[in-house]
Amino acid sequence: MTEAALTPQWRAELAARRGRVRRLLEESGCDVGVIFGCDGHNEHFRYLTNFAPVLGDSWLILGAEERCVLTFQWQIPEARTLSGIERWEGAFDPVPLVRDVLRGMRPTRIGIAGLERMPVPVHGALADGLAARVVDLSASVAGLRRRKSPLEVERLRAAARITDMMLDAARAMARPGVTEAELAAELSVIPLRRGARCAFETTVVSGVDAPVSIRRPTGRALAVGDSVMVDLGAEVEGYQADATRTFVVGAPSRAQLRAWDVVRRAYEAAVGLARPGVPCCELQRAAARIITDAGFSLEHRIGHGIGLATSFEWPSLDGEQAPLEPGITICIEPGVYAPGIGNMKLEDDVLITERGCELLTHSDQGLEARP
Amino acid sequence: MTEAALTPQWRAELAARRGRVRRLLEESGCDVGVIFGCDGHNEHFRYLTNFAPVLGDSWLILGAEERCVLTFQWQIPEARTLSGIERWEGAFDPVPLVRDVLRGMRPTRIGIAGLERMPVPVHGALADGLAARVVDLSASVAGLRRRKSPLEVERLRAAARITDMMLDAARAMARPGVTEAELAAELSVIPLRRGARCAFETTVVSGVDAPVSIRRPTGRALAVGDSVMVDLGAEVEGYQADATRTFVVGAPSRAQLRAWDVVRRAYEAAVGLARPGVPCCELQRAAARIITDAGFSLEHRIGHGIGLATSFEWPSLDGEQAPLEPGITICIEPGVYAPGIGNMKLEDDVLITERGCELLTHSDQGLEARP
Repeated sequence: MTEAALTPQWRAELAARRGRVRRLLEESGCDVGVIFGCDGHNEHFRYLTNFAPVLGDSWLILGAEERCVLTFQWQIPEARTLSGIERWEGAFDPVPLVRDVLRGMRPTRIGIAGLERMPVPVHGALADGLAARVVDLSASVAGLRRRKSPLEVERLRAAARITDMMLDAARAMARPGVTEAELAAELSVIPLRRGARCAFETTVVSGVDAPVSIRRPTGRALAVGDSVMVDLGAEVEGYQADATRTFVVGAPSRAQLRAWDVVRRAYEAAVGLARPGVPCCELQRAAARIITDAGFSLEHRIGHGIGLATSFEWPSLDGEQAPLEPGITICIEPGVYAPGIGNMKLEDDVLITERGCELLTHSDQGLEARP
Repeated sequence: MTEAALTPQWRAELAARRGRVRRLLEESGCDVGVIFGCDGHNEHFRYLTNFAPVLGDSWLILGAEERCVLTFQWQIPEARTLSGIERWEGAFDPVPLVRDVLRGMRPTRIGIAGLERMPVPVHGALADGLAARVVDLSASVAGLRRRKSPLEVERLRAAARITDMMLDAARAMARPGVTEAELAAELSVIPLRRGARCAFETTVVSGVDAPVSIRRPTGRALAVGDSVMVDLGAEVEGYQADATRTFVVGAPSRAQLRAWDVVRRAYEAAVGLARPGVPCCELQRAAARIITDAGFSLEHRIGHGIGLATSFEWPSLDGEQAPLEPGITICIEPGVYAPGIGNMKLEDDVLITERGCELLTHSDQGLEARP
């Protein structure tokens, strides 16, 4: 699973994606395209090349041919295999190299995706000596990623399956004496053992007195009465799942049971609305109302897109008015956080289908830890 | 170890660091300072706040008071505790918030550190409605980080100790049948179990036929005759170690022994020059000559600074002409990569002392795996 094998279907899909970007370029009157990626924000680049470097910036230049440039040359053989693109170069400061390539192409109009994360001096150095106008194509390229293809859904399903293993393991391990850090460590190794990765740092928050929606795991040992929230996800070939379960160590208190009921109802309300045609923000509204009507405050949005960019993936359910469509993948994650109760969140990944939705994560939703 | 405890000494050091930045601002005629950090590049911000978010941008605004802004509000209680700075805010798009804060301060000249990674539209939105001139203070602030304080060296020592445990474990586990991905997984969990993190993705490259200086671990199973290179590091409170060992599964071939002898001699040559007053690039030159004189090509630089930014930390030994000084920490990492031999690299972390240097990593340097 480590290597994203470049099957004929996958190769064809990657070529089709780049073809769609070339059409966007044509429609915008651009003769050259530049796709820029950087640490933590290389989803445009990855979408079009099936590769993202472990470190540094990445550039895809679309002209008469396809060329890629990286900050570090280390991974070029790997990148070539994964992408099917032949021409890769690396330079610790890649900007002069990219600029020279662009100058050689004599563009009049350059379409750039990734401008939203392109550093000021990089942009300045690129513009130097180029008479071309720049067109920002980031939103259009991001738009291509909204509806996931069957091959993308396959990868998200694989990530969700490993995420379920992580959630099941958390339920089995959440016993008195185990520290948050130990629990997070054993959960984080599960995707690595399978040649996958963690989509983000595994979060474990325990206790009832100091709820806070996300923090790094600490050396705190779990104790009877704790709410234990694990927020985690596996990543397969760049595609990232994102799910949360909450366990109570020992018997839940009445306050915990009541809060969990609120979370469950908010979750059901959002999942119940997850179908084509429903505006994204309707899911947020329905779930948020249940939380606030129960007297809790809304600490964060109810969910967001999942795919190559997790927390940054379109749509953000709190603001997006566009309707859901088949192929959109989101997470739904209502939570309640209150002193005396602790962190209580439930989160699953959801694929919007032709008629409704399908859960991608399936781990038991009960509050009971099973040591 | 998970929480970087804000001891009185550490609090005083952080205050002194911010004091030095304030002096840089004064010397540059700036009335306001802005320190910008983003995913993978938040070393300026971390240096001054003892905190870096797991996700998103970070801003420290230095005016009459100290204020911080993050993309995600999740970690604010943690950030407040770790930094000793009271005023933190979060917004999914933090730029309008930062701009409003700056406008309220009516600056005439803003000194910015982190401009080298500040995205174009962020910079544009900030400038909008501000008449202030911008002075790029990134290099000056980075300069403050070159010589490590005793408290910083303590953290690097702690990271190096865990890194040694990872290297020792790799030697014990490198046996036929174990896959690269399995080995990388079990090594990566070692810092997590201790409340530390991996400084970067653990690299395992095995075999002799397709050497490449860095790639992601694959499902390839180790076999007798393989060279197995592990390049890894632990991170403690942001401070990152970076070390490499090479093992041969079974008896090394003559070609492997000869290549390893070259690597060892290159390493000894560089370490032997690691003392105050020697230009950084002299270490590179001495080690590189040994590698190329032996008929191998030089695939990468011989080393670089370590601290908060690993591969991006000053100095890069291949180009830097400045002399080493006490308190500078670097890694020395000569490697030889050749078909039939595989990846062979040796890397240790080194502290420049008053009279010479001290190794921070100490794991056995022998080629023998010990299953």
